[in-house]
Amino acid sequence: MELGQIYQPVQEDLVKVKDNLRSIIKVDFPWLSEQLGYVVRGGGKGLRPALTLLAGKFYNYSLKYLLPMAASVELMHTATLVHDDAIDKSVARRGRPTIYQMWGEEPAVLLGDYLFAKAGEFVSDTQSPRVIKLFSQTLATISSGELSQFLGAFQLEQTRQHYFQRISSKTASLFSLATESGAILSGAPEKSVQALKEYGYNLGIAFQIVDDILDFAGTEEELGKPVGSDLSQGTLTLPAMLLLEHYPEDNPIKKLFENKNKQKNVELAIELVRNSSIVEECYAVASEYCTRASQNLSLLPENASRQALTVLAAYVIRRKK
Amino acid sequence: MELGQIYQPVQEDLVKVKDNLRSIIKVDFPWLSEQLGYVVRGGGKGLRPALTLLAGKFYNYSLKYLLPMAASVELMHTATLVHDDAIDKSVARRGRPTIYQMWGEEPAVLLGDYLFAKAGEFVSDTQSPRVIKLFSQTLATISSGELSQFLGAFQLEQTRQHYFQRISSKTASLFSLATESGAILSGAPEKSVQALKEYGYNLGIAFQIVDDILDFAGTEEELGKPVGSDLSQGTLTLPAMLLLEHYPEDNPIKKLFENKNKQKNVELAIELVRNSSIVEECYAVASEYCTRASQNLSLLPENASRQALTVLAAYVIRRKK
Repeated sequence: MELGQIYQPVQEDLVKVKDNLRSIIKVDFPWLSEQLGYVVRGGGKGLRPALTLLAGKFYNYSLKYLLPMAASVELMHTATLVHDDAIDKSVARRGRPTIYQMWGEEPAVLLGDYLFAKAGEFVSDTQSPRVIKLFSQTLATISSGELSQFLGAFQLEQTRQHYFQRISSKTASLFSLATESGAILSGAPEKSVQALKEYGYNLGIAFQIVDDILDFAGTEEELGKPVGSDLSQGTLTLPAMLLLEHYPEDNPIKKLFENKNKQKNVELAIELVRNSSIVEECYAVASEYCTRASQNLSLLPENASRQALTVLAAYVIRRKK
Repeated sequence: MELGQIYQPVQEDLVKVKDNLRSIIKVDFPWLSEQLGYVVRGGGKGLRPALTLLAGKFYNYSLKYLLPMAASVELMHTATLVHDDAIDKSVARRGRPTIYQMWGEEPAVLLGDYLFAKAGEFVSDTQSPRVIKLFSQTLATISSGELSQFLGAFQLEQTRQHYFQRISSKTASLFSLATESGAILSGAPEKSVQALKEYGYNLGIAFQIVDDILDFAGTEEELGKPVGSDLSQGTLTLPAMLLLEHYPEDNPIKKLFENKNKQKNVELAIELVRNSSIVEECYAVASEYCTRASQNLSLLPENASRQALTVLAAYVIRRKK
């Protein structure tokens, strides 16, 4: 089943979210408008806005509040990507040059700020102080997670606990904002809000682990960016940690982090991961989180949306991009 | 009269704002805590939070909402400075090394994001969707103003209209957010909200013109950063525009913008501005805006706060730092 099919219960409304997103391009500043157009048309899976709408389908599905929320989570996601690419000096994303690559670092920082602001405008349209506060807290969590990743770059002394903290902050927090806000804005009872929040969290952890696997096991064409990007930037992900555990001696990651033969050692590490059981071990961890995510749905009313969220948990594991 | 005296009607509550700001330092991430401490203790004039509190003094002075708002405008201001310094590669501000200089560009971008998020958390505590939306719109305005400044750097073809648009976006918008939000949160009638909004706007324009004058006419000690910073970064401010008009031939700014003898031409431009009527001409323009600001106060109830805001308008002109 493809994403478009999984999104079926909210497919029509996702089109409206896209219209909302496109509306931000209309500004009386041609250069900004061009950049915004480039960003908004950049595609992406639309996973976060879909999660908000799907999570809003169990109680009072009020588009007046859910549409701006869905647009808001997507814009916050986009803004963090624009800043991350500037910080990591990444040249490609989703098969296209990044904003950083197209226009440089300074405009990328300011455009990211602008996108955060627009995300803030959308979230204020939800009229819910609780959701607005969650939105800001999530942004604080994401940026502190990114800071932690930046500061930990090229450092071998990192435990799995560090890794899970990091991906919890930088990825799972936004997934859980997407689902929790959908639940709150549809007037879900508190138990259901918590269940959907945890679903989002567990799905986000699984999603990021798979992302980190694909950075080793995927192809550049599928990923839309070079394979091995994380290692090149000194980010120690779960597959890299397992590689260090499996090969404590003579490990290419150690050499790479000592700044020896960077490109060659990245390639060697990828080769070693692919020819080992590491990919499967990582998928096993990700699957656990997907199972938890599915279990989180058990107390929710049975409907097409619950079915979609269950299928989504399985999709996250088998996705190739 | 010094600022401390002008702030007198809200002096005690400004201490509470500072306590609120200091509370963000307490995070379980030592490195982030250190950076936040450095930023929050950095001083600054506290002008924006004072404006919010003073503007809130005419009707229902509700600290429950005004305190987080005052903290929010100050944090938004701080966040924009952290990003601006990273973008401009500025090494000093308020007599201290910038975050950019202390920790580098990438942490400065992420720390700025974190500060925007904390500003967003504070503003959500106002529980006012109108104010929260204004906050986000202001952030969008500021970042598009900064983008416009960055893109216009080292370009001679700029009119005064460009200049006023730019300072309106990057400075006056936040001043008017500070006063307008104070008015709204104290339940002011709509006419008073508009009056205080316009007061903030006019004060902000005057404040920025004086800032731009001081970049030519001040001393490094007073400014806490090198004189001539704007010209070095290719920013054409009002004094620079007048210098180009007064000396259309053989102008050091033209040479500087053609990348000739940068330091020498910055010094020459400063010298020429100081030895001309330009400083006075610029002060005359700034004074007009201060007069307008004072006039905006006329329909408000007479009280100590109105008196303070009137004195503040005069202070903005005669300040040296």
